[in-house]
Amino acid sequence: MARKSFPLAKVYSLLEPGPVVLVTTVRDGHPNIMTMSWYTMMEFEPPLVGCVISNRNYSFGLLKATNECVMNIPTVEIADKVVGCGNTSGAEIDKFETFGLTPRPASQVGAPLIEECYANFECRVADIKMVARYCFFVVEVVKAWIDPTVKNPRTIHHLGRGRFMVAGEKIKLKSKMK
Amino acid sequence: MARKSFPLAKVYSLLEPGPVVLVTTVRDGHPNIMTMSWYTMMEFEPPLVGCVISNRNYSFGLLKATNECVMNIPTVEIADKVVGCGNTSGAEIDKFETFGLTPRPASQVGAPLIEECYANFECRVADIKMVARYCFFVVEVVKAWIDPTVKNPRTIHHLGRGRFMVAGEKIKLKSKMK
Repeated sequence: MARKSFPLAKVYSLLEPGPVVLVTTVRDGHPNIMTMSWYTMMEFEPPLVGCVISNRNYSFGLLKATNECVMNIPTVEIADKVVGCGNTSGAEIDKFETFGLTPRPASQVGAPLIEECYANFECRVADIKMVARYCFFVVEVVKAWIDPTVKNPRTIHHLGRGRFMVAGEKIKLKSKMK
Repeated sequence: MARKSFPLAKVYSLLEPGPVVLVTTVRDGHPNIMTMSWYTMMEFEPPLVGCVISNRNYSFGLLKATNECVMNIPTVEIADKVVGCGNTSGAEIDKFETFGLTPRPASQVGAPLIEECYANFECRVADIKMVARYCFFVVEVVKAWIDPTVKNPRTIHHLGRGRFMVAGEKIKLKSKMK
């Protein structure tokens, strides 16, 4: 697949609607994947994203050790793999192998992009002051990629207990808001 | 409308999918409304929500002064009012009056509930350590309300520049995830 560079200034437009993302990390050649919904934009450009990655998750240690991750946005076509990643631990299995996901090299960070996701944001940790208390990392998106063939991504939005809302129709209103 | 108490332990299930919310504040009897998408869950129970409220917004001063707000979840039926609230300033107009929204008294905080929103979460500021640097407030939901007649809320999710995704179909997968 031919991935295209995506403007950093537009990263917010893919994260603000609140899709579930898959966070990849890597250490000693072993990549991991974590399913995440607890994140928010914090600045437009350079894009800052605040995210909660619990210290009960295997990814917490990898992120703390490397300060790098990739946020990948999946769509409903791979919802079963997203749930699979959320129900298992990288301490026990290789999630790429178990769920048939394909790691691709990133350009700025060690953590891999997930081929099956339509957008990928390479991130570096920018602020760890809220990690001790809330497991809340502020990361900066340093490089963004998109699959230009995906015109209408049906992202999934977590409602709890295995239920998801699938992105529906789009509307446009007159607005000065960014 | 008969609003019902909603369990605090389930607040995450309405915020995790990422709908646009309307944040109400009040000072000296003057209520205000702000449109917001930059927030995330930070703890299940008591529910903590982290949210970016820019110091360029009129609501910033009200929240700092009172430490109280209400997060109200609108649906597509009032999308025009949501955009209106996002394009105007409480320094200049009374948004309840201008956009025909109805304030209702909250039970735990001074800020009003918005009658036209199907869910309302009364909040108190819990942590201001990230306000100076990121305008990031951690608030605790102290009381939650829901309109039990709304069975399938068509929430709106901001894509930028006046475009919104409207909540689509729901799916359920087998999962151990909360």
